[in-house]
Amino acid sequence: MAANKKARTDPPYELLYWPGIPGRGEFIRLAFEAAGVSYKDTANESEDGVKAVISLIDSSSTGTDGNPPPFAPPALRIPGEGPDGKPLLIYQTPSILSYLGPKLGLAGTNEAEQQWILSHTLTALDLSNEAHETHHPIAVAKTYEEQKEESLKKATDVREARIPKFLGFFERVLKGNEEKGKGKYLVGDKLSYADTTLWHVLSGLLFAFPKEIEARKGGFELLFGTFYESVKEASGVKEYLASGRRKPFSMGMFRYYPELDRQ
Amino acid sequence: MAANKKARTDPPYELLYWPGIPGRGEFIRLAFEAAGVSYKDTANESEDGVKAVISLIDSSSTGTDGNPPPFAPPALRIPGEGPDGKPLLIYQTPSILSYLGPKLGLAGTNEAEQQWILSHTLTALDLSNEAHETHHPIAVAKTYEEQKEESLKKATDVREARIPKFLGFFERVLKGNEEKGKGKYLVGDKLSYADTTLWHVLSGLLFAFPKEIEARKGGFELLFGTFYESVKEASGVKEYLASGRRKPFSMGMFRYYPELDRQ
Repeated sequence: MAANKKARTDPPYELLYWPGIPGRGEFIRLAFEAAGVSYKDTANESEDGVKAVISLIDSSSTGTDGNPPPFAPPALRIPGEGPDGKPLLIYQTPSILSYLGPKLGLAGTNEAEQQWILSHTLTALDLSNEAHETHHPIAVAKTYEEQKEESLKKATDVREARIPKFLGFFERVLKGNEEKGKGKYLVGDKLSYADTTLWHVLSGLLFAFPKEIEARKGGFELLFGTFYESVKEASGVKEYLASGRRKPFSMGMFRYYPELDRQ
Repeated sequence: MAANKKARTDPPYELLYWPGIPGRGEFIRLAFEAAGVSYKDTANESEDGVKAVISLIDSSSTGTDGNPPPFAPPALRIPGEGPDGKPLLIYQTPSILSYLGPKLGLAGTNEAEQQWILSHTLTALDLSNEAHETHHPIAVAKTYEEQKEESLKKATDVREARIPKFLGFFERVLKGNEEKGKGKYLVGDKLSYADTTLWHVLSGLLFAFPKEIEARKGGFELLFGTFYESVKEASGVKEYLASGRRKPFSMGMFRYYPELDRQ
């Protein structure tokens, strides 16, 4: 009991990511939530927690505690696991997930499954990057309004060519694994971080392009009929969604601009 | 001797990627070459080898030999390592590199280094994706000429904002690791697949944006002064570059359009 209490109040994992939005941090949060493992979400847990995120990407830093500087959030800090017993700091969503996966029991049951899970996760993240580019096709540092004309073109291509290609691919992955996964899991017969990652991307697409996805989802029965609903009900994920702790989509990677959706 | 000969004529690893260009396959090739491990480069080794790549991404496939379908090349096939002793097939450049890294001795000496190497590799690949987007900002399936106007805008942003940000980051990584790495290695004191990956991206930038990089490289002394020259001379890499087997850049990810370079 004491150990449990300590695990909850003094979690070993610290997520460093921007507050207030799901963003790329959400892929990490979902892994922790699905595994039922506590974590500190620094920037969301205190007023000045965001300072830790900002200092992380100080453009003059050559790293801290023997760790290299991270390029961008999210980063994960793990006390005691770094050089000379200092904290370990790693960054890049797929790298963090590949580190956590085996530790959280979300990386399959053998080396082959572990690699497929990473491969599918990278593919789902590529899709989320393309969704981001629909409102920022020219310059990340400029506003949507400054690149609206190009956004309309980019969004058309992403909706008409890219989204169907990705969705069709994941439908085939589910189909190929149907005997083991029953349409609920991309790889093997249990939940992995590829499932939680793809699920979040699908939920982002439903937010950003509701008309487009509504028109297309019938063509992807396993994906929207079985998989999407099943991950929502998975142990840990269900409790998280009910908790109100999940931040709503707003002005992050996935944004709702009606003019970028199907007309 | 016999075992060595067999290893050269019947390599255990098969790279499946488009022929004739470096492309994303080059990140995998460089890892093999740096490790001195033989591999079959199917599409470059025979006239109809490309058929194996095309069949890989058959849009009706649900996978082969118990493997999931790959989303896109590159893919790596490893005989005997898949389900029930069948070939294992994995895809996505960072997933393939993270699988090969420890086996080829290119993934550092402990878990922390292994994760940093993957993180930096992902960041270098993000930069190569942005270089690709300079000539394809709107639609991958359309020609450059169809999106030239947007390309001019995108390339300006990538050259003026993104490239300096990435180069500055990697200069700081080298600086932070200077005691161990002497400016030659991003992580620790030996070559990793993060080094070969970043090196290829830098060589691609030198090809695509010669004026821009020439004007900026003085600001990144470790990166262009030490690191870039050192990886070129690394065991295995040097022999590969001298062999003539490395495909020249042409119309792949990195392209030279004078109008997209600094004027």
